[in-house]
Amino acid sequence: MGDAIVTAAILVIGDEILSGRTKDKNIGHIAENLTRVGIELREVRVVLDVEAEIVAALDALRTRYGYVFTTGGIGPTHDDITADCVAKAFGVGIDVDPRAVDMLLQRIAREDLNEARLRMARIPDGAELIENPISRAPGFRIGNVIVMAGVPAIMQAMLDNVLPTLTGGPPVLSETIDAAGLPEGRYAADLGVQASGFPDLSIGSYPSYSPAGFTNQIVVRGRDPARLAEAAAAIRAMVARLAPERVES
Amino acid sequence: MGDAIVTAAILVIGDEILSGRTKDKNIGHIAENLTRVGIELREVRVVLDVEAEIVAALDALRTRYGYVFTTGGIGPTHDDITADCVAKAFGVGIDVDPRAVDMLLQRIAREDLNEARLRMARIPDGAELIENPISRAPGFRIGNVIVMAGVPAIMQAMLDNVLPTLTGGPPVLSETIDAAGLPEGRYAADLGVQASGFPDLSIGSYPSYSPAGFTNQIVVRGRDPARLAEAAAAIRAMVARLAPERVES
Repeated sequence: MGDAIVTAAILVIGDEILSGRTKDKNIGHIAENLTRVGIELREVRVVLDVEAEIVAALDALRTRYGYVFTTGGIGPTHDDITADCVAKAFGVGIDVDPRAVDMLLQRIAREDLNEARLRMARIPDGAELIENPISRAPGFRIGNVIVMAGVPAIMQAMLDNVLPTLTGGPPVLSETIDAAGLPEGRYAADLGVQASGFPDLSIGSYPSYSPAGFTNQIVVRGRDPARLAEAAAAIRAMVARLAPERVES
Repeated sequence: MGDAIVTAAILVIGDEILSGRTKDKNIGHIAENLTRVGIELREVRVVLDVEAEIVAALDALRTRYGYVFTTGGIGPTHDDITADCVAKAFGVGIDVDPRAVDMLLQRIAREDLNEARLRMARIPDGAELIENPISRAPGFRIGNVIVMAGVPAIMQAMLDNVLPTLTGGPPVLSETIDAAGLPEGRYAADLGVQASGFPDLSIGSYPSYSPAGFTNQIVVRGRDPARLAEAAAAIRAMVARLAPERVES
């Protein structure tokens, strides 16, 4: 891990997410794992299976962030156009890659390796492959763009394979303080004062609601353990001071 | 409902989604409901609680799509900056709105309506309020931008209130054909031929994986019921023709 902050974006590719047919499970999983290895996820976009949209989003994100992780669109069907879009964005050729064919042959008999299945071996020139232990069709990395499957189990296996090869920054640490039943409106002003006093940290308040009412948690995030501990102690003291005053629901 | 296609985007605002701490449950819910009322969701972005990012994303999306739905950042704490960002994007003023104060007073006693809680009544000039039956702090609509809470139960209630006031296009109908155990690579070429024959429809193939293997579904989407039925029949015939040939896992 280096000292510089490393940033990332996710590009989710797929009509089925935007129509609501499929509920995305990949964003949260990638987000958690990037945080764990000290890579800061700064933006996510979800776009249709449309070449111009995918290429434009790829170019916007790959020039701005350290890494771009894409999910979806690398299967054998006509709507799987991610690899071709990535080649287009990078201005490189794309063709069936013998290394990827070898991987497919671990699962598919040679006589069944039809043209559609060979689409899954189309890899942009210069890309490194990412192994897929489940269905074998690989993901790939070219430049700072990491191309993965949309099926969650496969995406997760690819991410496990690629994460150790990436450079993370100093990890972001976090501490969560339970608001002890206080409503947000009771501590918001004092928390704002705390946030101003720790401009090097990120301090957030997160309500969750159930029919029984709200429970709130305050999360402090930052890279310096000493500052984090200092802020967490100050916020715990703030909660303790305010909690006895609680009168409303 | 009109005849023109109505498009939309979602802007999710919140550090907690990008850090992986909170798993978004709003995108899928909004997507499903927009599809139901004939509004086409074309893009989603998730950004940090940073003014410049929020304003830039709002401007990119509101100029391009029919509606923009935002979630998150309208609570009482210092990191709740969505309303101010929306006012800035539209170049209008923002202040405490007496109508919103009245809504807050349905839940909060007047003596507890401190400055932090009044932040929840800050509404950009010219916006219409969206009622929140749960915690009363309203969402709002200004121009084509609809601003909602991030807490799923509240967001859902706000969406229920606002959807009937929006103009949808002709609804997109869909039909799902089970691939009868066929692997995608077996039908991909034939499905591509079908897709070429129905350029007015969207035809997608969606694998899902469990340790027992893949199951695939083919989804046809479009606005013309007759064309949809025609394509579905052709794809069912294609599956029936290919299914007996299945030999591989």
